[in-house]
Amino acid sequence: MTAVYPGSFDPPTLGHIDVIERAAKIFGGLCVVVANSSRKDALFSASERKVLLEKSVKHLKNVVVDIHDGLTVDYMKKIKSRVIIRGLRAVSDFEYELAMATMNRKLYPKIETFIMMTGENYYYIASHTVKEVALHGGDVSQLVPKPVVDALKKKLHKKR
Amino acid sequence: MTAVYPGSFDPPTLGHIDVIERAAKIFGGLCVVVANSSRKDALFSASERKVLLEKSVKHLKNVVVDIHDGLTVDYMKKIKSRVIIRGLRAVSDFEYELAMATMNRKLYPKIETFIMMTGENYYYIASHTVKEVALHGGDVSQLVPKPVVDALKKKLHKKR
Amino acid sequence: MTAVYPGSFDPPTLGHIDVIERAAKIFGGLCVVVANSSRKDALFSASERKVLLEKSVKHLKNVVVDIHDGLTVDYMKKIKSRVIIRGLRAVSDFEYELAMATMNRKLYPKIETFIMMTGENYYYIASHTVKEVALHGGDVSQLVPKPVVDALKKKLHKKR
Amino acid sequence: MTAVYPGSFDPPTLGHIDVIERAAKIFGGLCVVVANSSRKDALFSASERKVLLEKSVKHLKNVVVDIHDGLTVDYMKKIKSRVIIRGLRAVSDFEYELAMATMNRKLYPKIETFIMMTGENYYYIASHTVKEVALHGGDVSQLVPKPVVDALKKKLHKKR
Amino acid sequence: MTAVYPGSFDPPTLGHIDVIERAAKIFGGLCVVVANSSRKDALFSASERKVLLEKSVKHLKNVVVDIHDGLTVDYMKKIKSRVIIRGLRAVSDFEYELAMATMNRKLYPKIETFIMMTGENYYYIASHTVKEVALHGGDVSQLVPKPVVDALKKKLHKKR
Amino acid sequence: MTAVYPGSFDPPTLGHIDVIERAAKIFGGLCVVVANSSRKDALFSASERKVLLEKSVKHLKNVVVDIHDGLTVDYMKKIKSRVIIRGLRAVSDFEYELAMATMNRKLYPKIETFIMMTGENYYYIASHTVKEVALHGGDVSQLVPKPVVDALKKKLHKKR
Repeated sequence: MTAVYPGSFDPPTLGHIDVIERAAKIFGGLCVVVANSSRKDALFSASERKVLLEKSVKHLKNVVVDIHDGLTVDYMKKIKSRVIIRGLRAVSDFEYELAMATMNRKLYPKIETFIMMTGENYYYIASHTVKEVALHGGDVSQLVPKPVVDALKKKLHKKR
Repeated sequence: MTAVYPGSFDPPTLGHIDVIERAAKIFGGLCVVVANSSRKDALFSASERKVLLEKSVKHLKNVVVDIHDGLTVDYMKKIKSRVIIRGLRAVSDFEYELAMATMNRKLYPKIETFIMMTGENYYYIASHTVKEVALHGGDVSQLVPKPVVDALKKKLHKKR
Repeated sequence: MTAVYPGSFDPPTLGHIDVIERAAKIFGGLCVVVANSSRKDALFSASERKVLLEKSVKHLKNVVVDIHDGLTVDYMKKIKSRVIIRGLRAVSDFEYELAMATMNRKLYPKIETFIMMTGENYYYIASHTVKEVALHGGDVSQLVPKPVVDALKKKLHKKR
Repeated sequence: MTAVYPGSFDPPTLGHIDVIERAAKIFGGLCVVVANSSRKDALFSASERKVLLEKSVKHLKNVVVDIHDGLTVDYMKKIKSRVIIRGLRAVSDFEYELAMATMNRKLYPKIETFIMMTGENYYYIASHTVKEVALHGGDVSQLVPKPVVDALKKKLHKKR
Repeated sequence: MTAVYPGSFDPPTLGHIDVIERAAKIFGGLCVVVANSSRKDALFSASERKVLLEKSVKHLKNVVVDIHDGLTVDYMKKIKSRVIIRGLRAVSDFEYELAMATMNRKLYPKIETFIMMTGENYYYIASHTVKEVALHGGDVSQLVPKPVVDALKKKLHKKR
Repeated sequence: MTAVYPGSFDPPTLGHIDVIERAAKIFGGLCVVVANSSRKDALFSASERKVLLEKSVKHLKNVVVDIHDGLTVDYMKKIKSRVIIRGLRAVSDFEYELAMATMNRKLYPKIETFIMMTGENYYYIASHTVKEVALHGGDVSQLVPKPVVDALKKKLHKKR
């Protein structure tokens, strides 16, 4: 069975990679799906995020990365997957995830959302905090995979 | 006694209608008050939201819909109501409501806020999720009243 | 309309009295119902709690105190009330109240639960904390009504 | 792959059955494991709970019910399963589940816990509330499977 | 020892002043640090906020106010302080603070974050609510220090 | 300044020791106070817990361990300390701590409670979980200090 792990990944963090590694061990295949949302505060484009994820998970043979613009359930139908994976870092994420999981089952009853707990070494890492730390010149090497460390340096250097 | 049910209702959902129906059974009258906030991310204007609510509650004889621009306590004073009704969907709403209820009693000690729990079939429906689903062409007929289904189609068709 | 405010009130606190006073201003009548639960860790008997409540609310003409052994919905049916009042002190109470309110509407669809926020001066007062403070000889006069201060002294003196 | 769904199930509710049905569709097999805890407030013995579960899931061909006395991770090792399923009803359960999932991975790094959201029609149903309603003669037929309705009647009749 | 109390203080509220007064009694010195964030929705500039804070805490001899543009940990290094003070108003703030505290210790292991509970008379006061009330002409004199009451009047008068 | 860290410590965990080590670096002295509560479900006596703590913190020169039977505020008065330290593992602990901190300031306004976040490697370790794991023969060496590992083995061996 192939599971789907959707998210914005702007940028991917070590917490995301941890969820990907753990899910990839359980499921036959894992499809990481970058949401092509047009939020103006995005730092990396969807294509850039896809490349960063691919570089960070190339050691995992059963993981592919894709971009999707639209509802997750439509993607699920397209690739005929029935399992959505979500990582939960905190209680405050929980209710959003609960509502989304219920909503998604209303829209497409065949699918199931499985919540995985973010590893204890990563729960405090959120993409937006990473951006803030990087923006102020802080060291993000404990927070994101190596390719993202480099990309953040380039991107923010350009921005100044 | 007439109770007041303030909100942004952008757009009204089946969860809102459920709260209105239940509150209308308990109180002599219920006044649904659309906040005329000028948030740029509003999909419907306050007048449009008022019309959508009126269409959705026309079976309830003791319910009126109004628009108010300002603090809820000022509206309470104007119509001499002492009861604010709020629907709560989730724990994360709770603290905001608690702070607002306390704040409102500080500003106008005669009033009381009653929290009603959103019906179990509607707790996962938030206005902003409805907009997201509709925006991507998802089916929202289980989420909002019929007049809103139609209005969303029109509005988002125009937008594209 | 007469509303019902059920609870264990072991003992009644200033937070409970605050909810009673505020609800009594809104509804025609308020019936405070002491749960006759046989929990072994109860400090006061249901009859003692009823007397303590009566002494503490005697300034409120439209409030009566009663004892009930059984489901709240059965009491609602008996006195033909349709409104349950509950005071909420904290987020952690919320989910219990949400589940109870939903459960009660399943058992008796005519009733509605209104949650009132505990006054900001009382949110930290829980019956069990009061007992703990009193047990260790702490001053509880800021936490419970005068009749309860006296009753706690007597009761705990006897206990030693 | 066979997943494990551990719990106390005292008694099994419609919420539990919903989780079982949904998980059984995703995994090759599902093993429902009754914790043989010696908690004094248990209403049904572990064997009784096993029978109630078996009667309630007999329409699901890939589900078996078992009893285990000890740590869940030891059961996982015994049957060589790597997936624990847990149903989450509420935010307040979340942190306990998070701690347990982390603890279990510390004790046995090969396993993964997947959280499933309880169906929106069942989130307000907790085993202990069911017991309370049944104890006071309330109707539990919307809360538990038919075999449990009958067992509760018998058990509580005997108790009086 | 000198502790640091960072925040946006847009504007300072009575809740902030309460935290400052209480922390100043415990530590040898307290440095209140205004974040020079360039958020577009700021009402007061960082310099204005600094002046408002200075006026509001001039009765506290061991408190100074400063402006900092960057990561809090860099400020800590600069003034060689090892204690960050944060006030917590609500559960929903908690997880953000937990993540920030952990992140800050990762970036600079010598420091410690101490959370203080906002006083029970101030927990419902958030800077953004104050702005909303003031914007609609509500009375904010119970919510913010006198210098802020005046500044809000001027600022919002100008804005109209 | 000497701070006080009260708790039940039944048994002390690596999370407790982490809080002690971090607090001891900030304050001149730290007094760890074991609550001599007579809870029947205690595994270790207050004296045993004191010894376990002393063995686990003997590398910290400015830390002492004491036993107290009564309200924490009374202990604060006795040793003239004004700072209570509490470690927070989770959101669900937060409201209890908030209520206790407010209550304690009501009983003794001179004191202040500082909340420290439990280290990210320890947040999932609660004393009662440790007992459960140990009871079922699980490995607790990653959860508690060495002296507690040994004491648990002895105690539980005796119990069988």
